[in-house]
This record gives sequence, C-alpha cells and structure tokens, in this order.
Amino acid sequence: MGMKIDLQTAAQRLREKDNILILIHQFPDGDTIGCGFALCRALQTLSKTARVLCSHTVNQKYDYILNSVTPQCFEPDFVVSVDVADQKLLGEPVLSAYGDRIDLSIDHHGSNTFFAKENYVDASAAAASEILYELICLLCGEPDKQMAAALYTGISTDTGCFKFTNTTPKTHLIAAKLMERGIDYGEINRIMFDTKVKSRILLERMALDSMRFFCDDKVAIMTITREMKQKSGADDEDLNGISALPRQVEGVLIGITVREQEGGYCKISVRTHEPVSAAEFCAKFGGGGHVRAAGCEIKGSVEEASEQLLALAKTYFEAK
Amino acid sequence: MGMKIDLQTAAQRLREKDNILILIHQFPDGDTIGCGFALCRALQTLSKTARVLCSHTVNQKYDYILNSVTPQCFEPDFVVSVDVADQKLLGEPVLSAYGDRIDLSIDHHGSNTFFAKENYVDASAAAASEILYELICLLCGEPDKQMAAALYTGISTDTGCFKFTNTTPKTHLIAAKLMERGIDYGEINRIMFDTKVKSRILLERMALDSMRFFCDDKVAIMTITREMKQKSGADDEDLNGISALPRQVEGVLIGITVREQEGGYCKISVRTHEPVSAAEFCAKFGGGGHVRAAGCEIKGSVEEASEQLLALAKTYFEAK
Repeated sequence: MGMKIDLQTAAQRLREKDNILILIHQFPDGDTIGCGFALCRALQTLSKTARVLCSHTVNQKYDYILNSVTPQCFEPDFVVSVDVADQKLLGEPVLSAYGDRIDLSIDHHGSNTFFAKENYVDASAAAASEILYELICLLCGEPDKQMAAALYTGISTDTGCFKFTNTTPKTHLIAAKLMERGIDYGEINRIMFDTKVKSRILLERMALDSMRFFCDDKVAIMTITREMKQKSGADDEDLNGISALPRQVEGVLIGITVREQEGGYCKISVRTHEPVSAAEFCAKFGGGGHVRAAGCEIKGSVEEASEQLLALAKTYFEAK
Repeated sequence: MGMKIDLQTAAQRLREKDNILILIHQFPDGDTIGCGFALCRALQTLSKTARVLCSHTVNQKYDYILNSVTPQCFEPDFVVSVDVADQKLLGEPVLSAYGDRIDLSIDHHGSNTFFAKENYVDASAAAASEILYELICLLCGEPDKQMAAALYTGISTDTGCFKFTNTTPKTHLIAAKLMERGIDYGEINRIMFDTKVKSRILLERMALDSMRFFCDDKVAIMTITREMKQKSGADDEDLNGISALPRQVEGVLIGITVREQEGGYCKISVRTHEPVSAAEFCAKFGGGGHVRAAGCEIKGSVEEASEQLLALAKTYFEAK
C-alpha cells in the first residue's frame, strides 16, 4: 500500500516531473475522461510532454475533450492515474504495461486501494473532476475553456447533472467557476443526457412493452431478452441505466429488471423505495448491493427467474 | 404600465405591509410554487399574515412545499404576484378577483408586461426562485430549510436540473447556498425528474412504438392518437415534454410529434438540430416558434398530417 499525500504535494510532483503518462480507467466514462484530458492539457500548457492512455477506445461523443490536447509520443518518466479506484480497473493492456509502476493516483472513490506510490484520495468529492479542478488551479491557475469543458463534463456526468445525492454545495461552486470560462454547457449536457442511439430507443420500447405490474402496482418487472438485444442492435453500453425504469413508475416500491444471459441464467437488477431493502431482497438469491440498488443472478429462463422474483416480492406485501 | 422598482424597494414594501396575498400563475409549476410558498413562509416567519392563491390545484407532489406554511384566512391589504409575466396568466377565478389590484410583481420573464403598480423583473434569472432567494435574504436573512427546499425546487425544475442554457454561474451559487440549509435535494429531484405516473409510461411506450424514421434516420415522426391517450389514461399534463423524444435519437435532425385532436385536426410539435430551423419549418404550415422548437396545426388525420410533414422534411435533404 502506497503513501497518502496532500494535494499540494501532488501538484508539486507534477510540477517537478516531465514526460507524464496519464492513465484513465477501462470502459471510460465522462469523469475519468474529463480528468485525464484536462490534466493532460494543463501539463501541456506548462510546456510539459504528456498523454492520456486507456485500455478502451473513448466514445466519439467525447471528441470535443479529446481534441483539446496535442498528441505526443514519448517514453514516460512519471505515471499518474485519475479516477481509478484499483489498478485492476485499468483493464488490459494498460494494467500489464503500467499497473505496477504508477507513481501517483488521484481519485475520489472511498474504495480506493492506495495502489500507487503516492495517493491523493478525497471521497467527499462527487467527481474526481472536482479534485482535478483544484489540482489544476494549483498547477496553473483557473482552467482555460477547454479544460473547463472537460472538467464540467466529468462533474455533470458523475452527478447525473447535479441530481444525485453525491452532489455537494462545493460541486455547485466548482460548476459556477467552470461555467465562467464560457463553456457550452448546454451542448455538453445535450450530448451527455438528451441523446440516445437508435438501438437504445428500440430496446427501450421493447423493454417498456415487457413491463408488468403486480401487488397493486407496487412491483414492476421488466425483462430484456437476448432476442430483444439482437433485434434492436443494442450493446451493453446501450443498456446503461435502463434498470432505473421500473422504479421510476409512481407507486412502485420494488422495480426489477431481468436480463437474459448466454448460458441459461439471468442477471437481475433490483431498485427499491422505502421500506424495501434491495440488498436484502437480492441476498435471498445470493446477491447483494446497496439499500436502494442491488443485483443477483438466477438460473433459468426469464420467465422462471421472473416467477421466483415475483414470489419473493409478494411476501413483502402479504406479510404487512 | 406600472413602475419599475429595485429589489430593496420590493423588500421594503413587503416589510411595511401586512395581510399579504401572494398570487402564482395558472397551471402552477415548480418555480411559481417554490416562489409563492417560500415568500409566504418568510412573511409568516416575520409574524405577518400571508397566504398563496392559485387558480388551479397544486399537484400533490409539491405537498412538502405546501405543508411548509400555516393556512391563514384574511382580507388582503397588499397583493403580490410571483413568476407571473402577464396578469392573464393568473387564470380564472384569480384574474377577475385580483387582476387589476396587484401592488407588486416579482418576475424573471423578459416578456413581462409590468402589469402591477410596482414591478421588479430580472430576465437574467434562470428561475424566479433565484430572485426570491435574494429577496428573502433581504427580508429575513438566509432562508430556512423549508424555504430553501421550495426555492431549490423552483430553480431545479426551471433549469431541467441545471441542464438548460438558462442556467448561469449565479444559479449554481444559489443552489450551493440552498443545499447548505440541509435540504433533501436528492429526494426533491427524484420526485421532479425520476418519477413518472403509470399512464405516462403506458403512453410513452405506445408513442415510441409509433416512431418512424425517414431520410437516412435524419427525420423521426412520432404520433399520439386520441385512442392512445384514452387507452393509457394519460391527460395533457402527462404529455409534458414528450415531444422531446424524436429529436433525442442520435442523428435525427428533424424530430416531429403529431398529436391528434378532437375536431379533425392535429397539433404538431417540431424539434430540430442545426441546420434546420423549426420555426421556418412550421411557418410553412402557418405555425411558428423558436429556431430549435416550434409548432403548428394541420387539418386531417394523423396519417394525412404525417404525410404532409414528411413531404416537407424530405425537401430539406433532397435539396442538399
């Protein structure tokens, strides 16, 4: 386990070093991308050589962030990871290449394993981009417009556009600072929140068609079969967040999504409202998670899984 | 046309007066409700007699705001409207009862008609609740938790949770201040943004089923028939925002929603992306609106209307 350092020391390290490789996590999201490229641009602004590396291709919707840095090729002297809770989350091939030689880790996950030589972790930050904002202020003053757009993207995507409970007053204060740089936050949010690929729309409509209500509409079960995925052309990324739909219906206390997998089993996602614990519900099937969102796996077809899930759900309302 | 005054003067008037009636606009939304009840609570905190009046019943999802004031019955000596751009928007019966005797109007609409004796209008405010925050600070210092919850609701709903381009750095700064009062903003946003009535879900799925794509998926047409409304049990409020769906599909430049009306005609809503002007598009059918969102009416069935709309849409892409 590496050392804990403060943010000033982290900034000092970056100031001292050059040829800096920035690692972001696999299946990159807005926060890790925003952090990585904002830092890269800040370092390049300080006339340093820097680049961002990821095990997976970055979705082209983030092009406005990627285009804000100059591509640079070099042998790294210093390796820093951003928004990475555990080196395993670098994924391959980055993990094998750099997993054991990370000099500095900057992150906001409470579950961070302090895998780097030096680590700065602030679990109170809604997004790692909040920390990067402060780090960049230490490095070169207020971020410029491009860095601000990258950091705003990180903050906005990690907080559901300031909707989730990880949002803090500080989140809003930083958002205000970033907006003052003249970023096109309206367009950023449109791309991040109000754009759906056609395959997602097609899948969503089949998923909504499958939604069934039970127990006086307190239980909703939605099923996503492999056939539905095939017909719509949706991939796993397109499924992101779809499990939220059943619980969004007013009055639903247990919202269940059953996703058919290859190999004769189903992945189950359960979202609940008070007083039902999703974690307890899923534990009955050997799964787990949080109080309001949990998951488990059940052998059998979607029909068989749904039947078992419904049988358990019924006990919650018959017992009362 | 009445006088323009500054916010200090507006606060002074409220401080001098008692038995204050607060009017909010018809079909009340989160902003007018948040403003009205936050001000009512602030005045009651100052030991004044005050109440909120609206021509329409407030949806029960706002109960946490309504419950923050004490019901009081009195003959008003001073009448103030909040978030009302024109007295007509009070609706009946409030318009006839009080439309010509409004002492003070506090609003954020650029289109405000200065209908009150004294008027404070700040069109740069994303929500009238931003102005009310400042007014309450002048009246009695930082709002308490209940006032803060009401004002946060107003700001969050008028900005699509900080997503729309009316949001300013100041909006975020005020949100930060309100969050510091310990409000349950996660629950507020869940109620406002992540809760749908079952009829809306049912209608949405029928509407999605009806969505058809043309011109290499650059045009999407969605139809909502009277039968669909009947089957789903959805009312006009449930239809709110549904016209946004067709343009949300990636690649769609013209998103059209055709809503069948009684009397053999259809209401059309058109949302576009660059370079298509929705206003110009709708002007061809005698309608109008903004560059990205406009509307018109077309005589005939949904099929007939869709055909005419598609014929026009095609010209945009064939011409190029």
